[in-house]
Amino acid sequence: MTGLTTRSMPVMVVENGKFGNRAYCAINEGLGKVMRFGGNDTEVLKRLAWLRDVLGPALGKALRARAGVPLKPLIARGLSMGDEMHQRNVACTGLFLREIAPWLARTCDDSLRLADVLAFIAGNDQFFLNIAMALGKAMTDPARNIAKSSIVTAMCRNGTDFGIRVSGTGDAWFTAPVEMPVGLYFAGFSAADANPDMGDSAIVETIGLGGFAMAAAPAVVGFVGAGSAADAAVFTRTMREITAAENPEWTIPGLDFAGVATGIDVRLVAETGITPTINTGIAHRKPGVGQVGAGVVRAPMACFTQAVRALANAEGAT
Amino acid sequence: MTGLTTRSMPVMVVENGKFGNRAYCAINEGLGKVMRFGGNDTEVLKRLAWLRDVLGPALGKALRARAGVPLKPLIARGLSMGDEMHQRNVACTGLFLREIAPWLARTCDDSLRLADVLAFIAGNDQFFLNIAMALGKAMTDPARNIAKSSIVTAMCRNGTDFGIRVSGTGDAWFTAPVEMPVGLYFAGFSAADANPDMGDSAIVETIGLGGFAMAAAPAVVGFVGAGSAADAAVFTRTMREITAAENPEWTIPGLDFAGVATGIDVRLVAETGITPTINTGIAHRKPGVGQVGAGVVRAPMACFTQAVRALANAEGAT
Repeated sequence: MTGLTTRSMPVMVVENGKFGNRAYCAINEGLGKVMRFGGNDTEVLKRLAWLRDVLGPALGKALRARAGVPLKPLIARGLSMGDEMHQRNVACTGLFLREIAPWLARTCDDSLRLADVLAFIAGNDQFFLNIAMALGKAMTDPARNIAKSSIVTAMCRNGTDFGIRVSGTGDAWFTAPVEMPVGLYFAGFSAADANPDMGDSAIVETIGLGGFAMAAAPAVVGFVGAGSAADAAVFTRTMREITAAENPEWTIPGLDFAGVATGIDVRLVAETGITPTINTGIAHRKPGVGQVGAGVVRAPMACFTQAVRALANAEGAT
Repeated sequence: MTGLTTRSMPVMVVENGKFGNRAYCAINEGLGKVMRFGGNDTEVLKRLAWLRDVLGPALGKALRARAGVPLKPLIARGLSMGDEMHQRNVACTGLFLREIAPWLARTCDDSLRLADVLAFIAGNDQFFLNIAMALGKAMTDPARNIAKSSIVTAMCRNGTDFGIRVSGTGDAWFTAPVEMPVGLYFAGFSAADANPDMGDSAIVETIGLGGFAMAAAPAVVGFVGAGSAADAAVFTRTMREITAAENPEWTIPGLDFAGVATGIDVRLVAETGITPTINTGIAHRKPGVGQVGAGVVRAPMACFTQAVRALANAEGAT
């Protein structure tokens, strides 16, 4: 260690145009041996340094010159192109590249550097995932702290616990031991390597994407080992049982343009016994390895029953 | 007219790697008022000049530097992203842009020109259509002139007649009066404006795309006014009745990865009474207007019965 340095990593900013709040995300590194799944060797650090020194500044210039990229219509389009925005972001990544590539060209004066930036985004099918996550937070934050509302405003996991936050119960987190994902493993790995579910990406399910929009992405069902194409529609229809509404702006052609199931209601979860389905990446349980597979995990019921009890107590108290 | 000029339009070249034959296509101009649908005013000619002087040369440099873009895997991916490659090419256009954008950056030294080229491809959802058409010809040409083969090697229309060519009958075209497409019209236009079906794009149906791959593209069913999402699967399953095989490399996630129906057999068409379904753009019947809608058209049965008779005569003669 030659000395402590404090150079900042760039983040992407998602702004909620209606409410003015913002959310932030790191830049997606790709699949496999990456920092967010526990990778930490020279290859990983070198990539992060490049994201900090080259891609981040280039993307920042282009995004500012373009005055941002509207995300809700982009996701609407991605849903008609087989993405569910959790395990599959290939369409949205391409659509984002289409929006930003001309602006990268206009604002980057080094054509080899520009080529590298274009190639990185083009070569990372999950580039859009982090943007979808920040969008999830930007969309749900204004729904927080509405008295008596039983709608889930966040779901996340840390490898040990699963936590949810509910609109009517303020800043409280309702937690329970997280479950193991059930899925498929990359070559050379198996369930024995898996860490219990982790990460904050379940914010995309909170806004009706991921496992809730599986009908849009029949190819994902195979990738996560969750059945046939017909099962994709079953996932989405089942999530409709525990949500307040369908999103009229985010529709699924394969379901005759029904909207994605949106607004998880903790009371409906408790009533029906159906817990949210989350499409997830699987991390190796040891540090340094990274992502080893992808699968499906259920949110634990105990989070929701606790929330229902807290809501009832809050109502009794007023 | 200030004088006759003879400057060439650039074409894209698709090479069949296995057989070495080549096919060619013009660069897609976009939707609406475009030359290939009859548009011919200053706006149209200006765009064509720009394609000739700017986009064509830039794309040519990038494609040569990259030594081409493999198309069959790209189409395989597009089928999992809602394209059927006739009325919907948004995924393949994006996938093509991902492949070529870094190479455009590496080979174009004028960044504003580069930005314009990237923006044109990014803004033209049908950019890939012409490439798919040339691929169709490059794929079917080696299947021509196989004795006794009853497989269709080309289908096309000229606004008056529909013609097919069959492997076992050499260079003969079997023609019949073309039908009117049934579909939806752009704002301000109706069936009264429509020209009978025209163009050589039905080569994509000849290789199992377009109407034959409708199950991959439920959103197209709505665009061409042909029913609900469930009907998309019916289109593809019905075409399976008149084709020799499913393409194992081009599969449809929504049909549990069944391959697209490929290899139209004129005998099966005659036996079943089912004619090929073609997704088509609708041109205005007057010159100068351009595309006014999109729909579905059937190939006329008379083409196929003539071909069956010709095949029988050829066999009788040997």
